[in-house]
Amino acid sequence: MENLATPVKTAKPLISPTNDKNNSTMKALVYHGAGKKAWEDKPKPTIIEPTDAIVKILKTTICGTDLHIMKGDVPTVTDGRIIGHEGVGIIEELGSAVTNFKKGDHVLISCITSCGKCAFCKKAMYSHCEKGGWILGNLIDGCQAEFVRIPYADTSLYLIPAGADEEALVMLSDILPTGFECGVLNGKVKPGDTIAIVGAGPIGLATLLTAQFYSPAEIIMIDVDDNRLEVAKTFGATHIINSSDGKAVEKIMKLTNNMGVDTAIEAVGVAPTFELCESIVAAGGHIANIGVHGKSVTLHLETLWSHNVTITTRLVDTVTTPMLLKTVQSKKINPNKLITHHFKLDQIMEAYETFGNAGKEKALKVILTS
Amino acid sequence: MENLATPVKTAKPLISPTNDKNNSTMKALVYHGAGKKAWEDKPKPTIIEPTDAIVKILKTTICGTDLHIMKGDVPTVTDGRIIGHEGVGIIEELGSAVTNFKKGDHVLISCITSCGKCAFCKKAMYSHCEKGGWILGNLIDGCQAEFVRIPYADTSLYLIPAGADEEALVMLSDILPTGFECGVLNGKVKPGDTIAIVGAGPIGLATLLTAQFYSPAEIIMIDVDDNRLEVAKTFGATHIINSSDGKAVEKIMKLTNNMGVDTAIEAVGVAPTFELCESIVAAGGHIANIGVHGKSVTLHLETLWSHNVTITTRLVDTVTTPMLLKTVQSKKINPNKLITHHFKLDQIMEAYETFGNAGKEKALKVILTS
Amino acid sequence: MENLATPVKTAKPLISPTNDKNNSTMKALVYHGAGKKAWEDKPKPTIIEPTDAIVKILKTTICGTDLHIMKGDVPTVTDGRIIGHEGVGIIEELGSAVTNFKKGDHVLISCITSCGKCAFCKKAMYSHCEKGGWILGNLIDGCQAEFVRIPYADTSLYLIPAGADEEALVMLSDILPTGFECGVLNGKVKPGDTIAIVGAGPIGLATLLTAQFYSPAEIIMIDVDDNRLEVAKTFGATHIINSSDGKAVEKIMKLTNNMGVDTAIEAVGVAPTFELCESIVAAGGHIANIGVHGKSVTLHLETLWSHNVTITTRLVDTVTTPMLLKTVQSKKINPNKLITHHFKLDQIMEAYETFGNAGKEKALKVILTS
Amino acid sequence: MENLATPVKTAKPLISPTNDKNNSTMKALVYHGAGKKAWEDKPKPTIIEPTDAIVKILKTTICGTDLHIMKGDVPTVTDGRIIGHEGVGIIEELGSAVTNFKKGDHVLISCITSCGKCAFCKKAMYSHCEKGGWILGNLIDGCQAEFVRIPYADTSLYLIPAGADEEALVMLSDILPTGFECGVLNGKVKPGDTIAIVGAGPIGLATLLTAQFYSPAEIIMIDVDDNRLEVAKTFGATHIINSSDGKAVEKIMKLTNNMGVDTAIEAVGVAPTFELCESIVAAGGHIANIGVHGKSVTLHLETLWSHNVTITTRLVDTVTTPMLLKTVQSKKINPNKLITHHFKLDQIMEAYETFGNAGKEKALKVILTS
Repeated sequence: MENLATPVKTAKPLISPTNDKNNSTMKALVYHGAGKKAWEDKPKPTIIEPTDAIVKILKTTICGTDLHIMKGDVPTVTDGRIIGHEGVGIIEELGSAVTNFKKGDHVLISCITSCGKCAFCKKAMYSHCEKGGWILGNLIDGCQAEFVRIPYADTSLYLIPAGADEEALVMLSDILPTGFECGVLNGKVKPGDTIAIVGAGPIGLATLLTAQFYSPAEIIMIDVDDNRLEVAKTFGATHIINSSDGKAVEKIMKLTNNMGVDTAIEAVGVAPTFELCESIVAAGGHIANIGVHGKSVTLHLETLWSHNVTITTRLVDTVTTPMLLKTVQSKKINPNKLITHHFKLDQIMEAYETFGNAGKEKALKVILTS
Repeated sequence: MENLATPVKTAKPLISPTNDKNNSTMKALVYHGAGKKAWEDKPKPTIIEPTDAIVKILKTTICGTDLHIMKGDVPTVTDGRIIGHEGVGIIEELGSAVTNFKKGDHVLISCITSCGKCAFCKKAMYSHCEKGGWILGNLIDGCQAEFVRIPYADTSLYLIPAGADEEALVMLSDILPTGFECGVLNGKVKPGDTIAIVGAGPIGLATLLTAQFYSPAEIIMIDVDDNRLEVAKTFGATHIINSSDGKAVEKIMKLTNNMGVDTAIEAVGVAPTFELCESIVAAGGHIANIGVHGKSVTLHLETLWSHNVTITTRLVDTVTTPMLLKTVQSKKINPNKLITHHFKLDQIMEAYETFGNAGKEKALKVILTS
Repeated sequence: MENLATPVKTAKPLISPTNDKNNSTMKALVYHGAGKKAWEDKPKPTIIEPTDAIVKILKTTICGTDLHIMKGDVPTVTDGRIIGHEGVGIIEELGSAVTNFKKGDHVLISCITSCGKCAFCKKAMYSHCEKGGWILGNLIDGCQAEFVRIPYADTSLYLIPAGADEEALVMLSDILPTGFECGVLNGKVKPGDTIAIVGAGPIGLATLLTAQFYSPAEIIMIDVDDNRLEVAKTFGATHIINSSDGKAVEKIMKLTNNMGVDTAIEAVGVAPTFELCESIVAAGGHIANIGVHGKSVTLHLETLWSHNVTITTRLVDTVTTPMLLKTVQSKKINPNKLITHHFKLDQIMEAYETFGNAGKEKALKVILTS
Repeated sequence: MENLATPVKTAKPLISPTNDKNNSTMKALVYHGAGKKAWEDKPKPTIIEPTDAIVKILKTTICGTDLHIMKGDVPTVTDGRIIGHEGVGIIEELGSAVTNFKKGDHVLISCITSCGKCAFCKKAMYSHCEKGGWILGNLIDGCQAEFVRIPYADTSLYLIPAGADEEALVMLSDILPTGFECGVLNGKVKPGDTIAIVGAGPIGLATLLTAQFYSPAEIIMIDVDDNRLEVAKTFGATHIINSSDGKAVEKIMKLTNNMGVDTAIEAVGVAPTFELCESIVAAGGHIANIGVHGKSVTLHLETLWSHNVTITTRLVDTVTTPMLLKTVQSKKINPNKLITHHFKLDQIMEAYETFGNAGKEKALKVILTS
């Protein structure tokens, strides 16, 4: 794709830069191998399949996964790829087979593309869609750009009602359904439960917000960063534990009369945090993994075999997006709490700088507005 | 039982009234046939089975069912019966087989007695316990008295933690589990749902409170009493509809873009309110009946057969009492909202007067304190 | 549509009957108002939308609903409509947006058309698809013809594996998923259960076959036709009851030690059979309605309010078709048991005669082969 | 306990050996430390708590766990303990609080003792009963004896209907509910599924039998013993794989078109078999652990994190015993298939020999009859 792009870029000035840019090029954040990215000209996307839509980006954001991509950790992302899988925008153009939308509609972009007709989509497991899944900003160009092509638009975009808070809705592209589906739903959080969330980063905090849909009695938030734990308290955590002293298990057992927690949610993605969940889950309880793991973990079946536990893993399906839209519209949740910084879209290099130093910058999610 | 009671009553003055009363008699609210009740002396209950407990009543209340009993509508209740199936108290005496409690423990009395070992109890359907179910203040003497005998104490009482708000917990004997189990759980209320509750009396309001455990987007409250509807608003209703103009269906269809509600909860117990639920339930939705019905209703299968609806009925099982206790302890719900009037236990005749004129008195639940 | 059809029919002989018929007309069973039908020439269907497929019918059948249509009972079916919503066939032509199939594929036609992208389809409630649902042989031309146009082919057809028994698979268009989804799944049949199926017609027998997927201990079949009951026995019923003596309730209560049945499935569609289900369902049990009801029924809430029952209604969604295909392929079920008569497709008038006298002819399902 | 027992044993001959034995001693299989056991005299058990029953053993069996105990692998079992947790018998004597049974009733003994009134029992998680769980033949004397004391008899014994096949029912004490609850129910086996069971020993075969309650399309049985695999075929396995060549994963992926299995059930208890399950589970699938693990395993979250899998562990609760009883009574399952050898109870040392050499003896379950 970058080979195609280069001639276009160099050719432009010779003819009619302004018009040409309006018509056929755009600015986008492009990955150029580990550690290299640029906000540069790229061809404006066009309809390829009749099920495609072209969306003009209004607001987008940066995901922790994007930082991994930039470090070169995600081998499926190759040089030249436009990054980003979150955002809201306006329908600019529609393929002939798209019927759910019309030009000018404001839409929420799902991080997961769903064809709507494969065996997995029929089972509402869009994450494993035979032709979709997580492809935006991964296998195809993504949302950190002025325009994006969305395949299977009818089943991968969601209409934004007039008057909605579109900035809040950017949080529904990925982070809220991820926390909700992988953590809260898979963890079967129930009224009166005692739950623990390990990791108070953006995804752990999104889990904390959506867990409250089910009114657990106690929400214990665990992290090594006191600032994030303080934020967690303002988000609804009933207890916070800084685990850097190695006493998290002991403290949680004390808090729970040695019963452990009904649900332990892993929102980090490394072995020690998963194994912490194994140590604190009650008999009959749930461990819900959200974290992206690069290595295996030790599963202590020598104790857990008789502990009647359920462990779940999940790549977000975004199957709850319609439900989450209703909860935002009815103000049962306020996703804006997750937004700490604002930038113009063309300040995206600076935004990456801020988001990449989240600890120092006290950044959770950044909003980029076109 | 009344035959046994009468000699004791007449015999007392002759010997040692004060001591004798302390030792063997107590005051209780007794049903004497339709329209007749008295606050009178009754023998203090004693342990009959090794699984019994005698509980000294601290606080009790009056249920709508008690008013029905007093009108003579409940044929299983016979002359001489002590009424009442709700309350908190102190363990006064224990049968030899009771192991979960000790003398002096503060306990919550469940309106449903569960033997813990019949086929129904093993399926957590305590309402149909072969030896229990709703027997208190019905087939055996109840809680509107200074003392009450509780059969199968280990599985029919719940320990009250030190420092708990015991007045709030009286609401957990019957009204909160009833609204929660029969209405909210059976109605499968989910985050983002639009639900309607038909009937804003105490039980409808208890349903409204507990429905919020699941964060529905819209809660439409329907009644014919504007005062109750105003109360419903302060309890969390997002919309109120006075159905006395016959336009409730029309209004709800307008509110829901002609889709109807995800869950319609019947909390009255007459045909018109149940049939209203049939008219407003969305395709794929739920009708959860709570009301005690004296007559049959018309089920419009000529339209509902293809509407993919689920209709449930249930006598409360109080199987969620431990869960509800945790939600009260963690302040996820405030049952005190339901309490409008307070009386001393020996003012119970006056309390019945107030509760019997709930509309005029703006009464929801009354608390009687010993 | 019939207006268009008539000139074509009269015009044909004048020019080139044979070729013309091959190219643009076909034979079809057409409804012409209550009591009137004809096997006559109709224009061969063509692709209208890019999501359409044209399927050459290999095998089709007649549904009880088709008999209702022919009596004029289904007002949505108008004069000129080709009837039929079941069958297997070969992909003859595909719209440009269809990707799951290729020309020549053998396919199973679902009686329910699903767009795959409306809110209902996303909830797997295809029966209420905004653009589909039951439209074949109802709102659009159906399958009792040489060819049929199938809208939303990708999500409304199912690939038939090579070597499959295609005659058996005709039973998967409607009758098996209907019995399974509306009766067995909605009725929550479990291993060890005692269930009753009221109505031993084709749909009741399909329910009987699919109920055995869940290994209930007892299956009581109830009908007024001894022949059908005998058939039911060969299909796996453990008990049969001829209810014409008015003693069905009494007999079932005796069989179940006065507990009633765990699940009562209504497979007739009239008030007495539904009300029979109300009388025999156990506390905590399920009533699953399958029957198409033309009138309301009486729901005895005066007894059922406290009986903890669940009543469900459902228009088949055919969401279990992939599951059913696997059970047929692995011989866990033999749908051929339902097939009693075979005809050539052009003998369809005779087939209607036989199926319309099912009692006398001992007919269950007829197969029409092109 | 053995200290108490010894004087009784030595004292007996001095007085009235025959009568005394009849009245106060019995024969039992006693553990005397790793590698040492004896069929010897022990005091006949007596009622200790009012909830106890004394059961005269009619038939019992030996469990794989008993072999582990005999090797000294189960530290909770101490010298002098009577082993065994399975069997059927006759009620010999009842504590005063037992109401579900009467003297002379034939009963099935559950391997799990349930008090019926702790928080875990109320959640139907009897395995973790605060006062029970697996205590028989572990913390208290067990069933490989002429008599056994069963605590909490009302909730730990099951009435055997007259005429039942009591030998078959011995399989319901432990092995069938274990396979069913831990493997089949936790693994959410559904009609049409493809499942794999790793381990074709008695417990794997019990899983194979009970899995068929749910009509999976394919059941792949994996073991290293060809004889056991052949047995599995006669029990209903559709495919057998001898995994000793290290190609099981490859073969299963080929069988499943590279999708993997819907449910993988681990019935061995070592790391390689659990990790095999990780390799063959389909996206969206289940791993259900049954095996008793002595060591931890490696959980490959680096691939499974996005595979939407559910992993469960469970100590059998025997909560499905009533359901299983009905399936045996109605001949939906034939547990006798698991019984390969018969002995008299006093031949138990020989029976251990046979069962301990299961491979050579082609033994599955042995029956010991008093």
